[in-house]
Amino acid sequence: MSKVRIGIVGVGNMGSSHSRYLTAGEVPDGELVAVADTSPDRIDWAKETLGEEIQCFDSAEDMFNSGAIDAAIIATPHYDHPPLAIRAMELGLHVLIEKPAGVYTKQVRELNAFAEKSDRVFGLMFNQRTLSTHQKMRDLVQSGDLGEIQRTNYIITSWFRSQSYYDSGGWRATWAGEGGGVLMNQCPHNLDLWQWICGKPSRVRAFIGFGKYHDIEVDDSVTAYVEYENGGTGVFITTTGEAPGTNRLEIAGDRGKVVLEGGKITFWRTRESVSKFNKEYQGGFGSPEVWKCDVPSGSGGEGHKGITKNWCSAIKDGTELLAPGTEGIHGLEIGNAMLLSSWTDGWVDIPIDDELYHKKLQEKIDSSTVVKEDTGKVLNVVGTH
Amino acid sequence: MSKVRIGIVGVGNMGSSHSRYLTAGEVPDGELVAVADTSPDRIDWAKETLGEEIQCFDSAEDMFNSGAIDAAIIATPHYDHPPLAIRAMELGLHVLIEKPAGVYTKQVRELNAFAEKSDRVFGLMFNQRTLSTHQKMRDLVQSGDLGEIQRTNYIITSWFRSQSYYDSGGWRATWAGEGGGVLMNQCPHNLDLWQWICGKPSRVRAFIGFGKYHDIEVDDSVTAYVEYENGGTGVFITTTGEAPGTNRLEIAGDRGKVVLEGGKITFWRTRESVSKFNKEYQGGFGSPEVWKCDVPSGSGGEGHKGITKNWCSAIKDGTELLAPGTEGIHGLEIGNAMLLSSWTDGWVDIPIDDELYHKKLQEKIDSSTVVKEDTGKVLNVVGTH
Repeated sequence: MSKVRIGIVGVGNMGSSHSRYLTAGEVPDGELVAVADTSPDRIDWAKETLGEEIQCFDSAEDMFNSGAIDAAIIATPHYDHPPLAIRAMELGLHVLIEKPAGVYTKQVRELNAFAEKSDRVFGLMFNQRTLSTHQKMRDLVQSGDLGEIQRTNYIITSWFRSQSYYDSGGWRATWAGEGGGVLMNQCPHNLDLWQWICGKPSRVRAFIGFGKYHDIEVDDSVTAYVEYENGGTGVFITTTGEAPGTNRLEIAGDRGKVVLEGGKITFWRTRESVSKFNKEYQGGFGSPEVWKCDVPSGSGGEGHKGITKNWCSAIKDGTELLAPGTEGIHGLEIGNAMLLSSWTDGWVDIPIDDELYHKKLQEKIDSSTVVKEDTGKVLNVVGTH
Repeated sequence: MSKVRIGIVGVGNMGSSHSRYLTAGEVPDGELVAVADTSPDRIDWAKETLGEEIQCFDSAEDMFNSGAIDAAIIATPHYDHPPLAIRAMELGLHVLIEKPAGVYTKQVRELNAFAEKSDRVFGLMFNQRTLSTHQKMRDLVQSGDLGEIQRTNYIITSWFRSQSYYDSGGWRATWAGEGGGVLMNQCPHNLDLWQWICGKPSRVRAFIGFGKYHDIEVDDSVTAYVEYENGGTGVFITTTGEAPGTNRLEIAGDRGKVVLEGGKITFWRTRESVSKFNKEYQGGFGSPEVWKCDVPSGSGGEGHKGITKNWCSAIKDGTELLAPGTEGIHGLEIGNAMLLSSWTDGWVDIPIDDELYHKKLQEKIDSSTVVKEDTGKVLNVVGTH
């Protein structure tokens, strides 16, 4: 096989961003050959910008059936990710979907069931998994160097968005259009990283503000408490209403604590096991010796392009995926559990009740009074995630 | 009036610590003249250590009635703080009580009602209010420099205690003896500082581990979510089971965020109001300009001695109290609300239902199966708070 022939479904904000590094030849194993978009304006944009050799389609279905592509990147609004991914795989195409994998777990569990029976390469744009800091945090946990996890604390409030951002797209920040707010749009990465690094919680209790800082109907302020199977606890805090906000992941374990903040990892490592010291020390006041360690964590990572490169290599050479599509369910399920907990003002166990969540989401859609006009405006996403 | 003649009730861990700086003459307006303790061992210790001029009593009542003292510092186990404080004021003495003001709000509201009718000077050992960093944090909020508070996050898990600490005293870490765990013993300062700096929340939802890291019946691991009257939210996390733990207070407001950690205050100040920018900015993605400011916060503070000095000055010259005794209710009420929320697995409004809390606490005491022998061991508290 020569280069993987790629088609992008949706060349709005994120899709156009993917098209740029692909047409610049920055993905050795792949080439952009086609795009599909239902908006004539975006097709015009593609024709003007991407060059004449790129085929343009006004429907994903036509592009999937064209024979022109081996693989599709799906960068449409969220609700369409699962059905388009299934359809593409059905027609023999490899698939890479933008995050989130879908809007509700029921939909994504169906997608995963389909993907598991398919031999196509199914990837997910969890570009933050490519960052060396996140990989190192995961390494510190998985290697056992941090010891058993006692507590996690992820404050990820550096997602400030102005009202004009929300006003820029008809689908944005509505139950019908996007299926959620900060949890669905900004946080899929963080929810994924949290579970990728620390493991998946077993139950959730969340407190959510809907349209707290913006004139929107969905979530823009979240505090969630979780419990893990081993008895550990965690807190996840996010909002689009703070500036400058915080991006800080702290994990306390039986061998100290590690903090990722400002792109820097610091590990306060106890010289011995905390639980052992706790049991054996006889002096009353006193605590284990601690070594403050600056942990090297490399420099950066390839982001979106890295995920696309990895996906193309997986298609060509069977390279292992850094972000398998089927893993999209995990962060989504945690986010769904948070919303459900807030709606029911109670605990939500994981795995969640897919049907109940879907029903509650449908109720939100049905009772929505939001009427927005699509401005068709495409925002510059350079610097976003 | 010459020097305030002080008697200390209880010369165990904290009382003996107060006796040291007093006998060293470090409090200009006060002098230690007497101590009272029900333990013969501690009386022996006082006679040997404090000098012959210090009168020793085997009951607080006798010392209060002796005519030898003008003022009493009460450093007994927690339950006795309110009745002893009331009795001392009744007999015309000024009073300074160790934290917490009491164990349950019902008891402390009675104390406060009595104190408000008394003309005696009633102080509380909130020594952490003397620290310049805490005063500066309060200043940043109260001055309006931080803008209206959106979110607070206090991680105060640097309270590691080993099992041997809990085993050292018969009253420790029992419902009957101490009335709580980390919230009652270690965190009164932090609960007070949190409300002193950020204001008092209006409702609480807390998640608590009882004997999670230690063989004790009370709380040693707490995560609490709170809401403020203005719609702001907050999280308070504490435990005695982590090492080294974290001591970090973050407050996000309409003019940025401020963080106190490692004795250092950093203020990421937005050049303009976040809420104004949010409404008026028209560019979609984009956020307010931020200036990272290192805020000078002085060096330290006088701690316990500072509170005792301030209290003596208040008695002698009417100096304003930094920590009026009647303010002890605030942090206690938040802590009580956390426990009640955990016990009932539900929301607790503030002001809390004093009677309900008292009833629930009594149930814990009645159903306790803990039998501990008092080792009579006095721990070295140098370096504790």
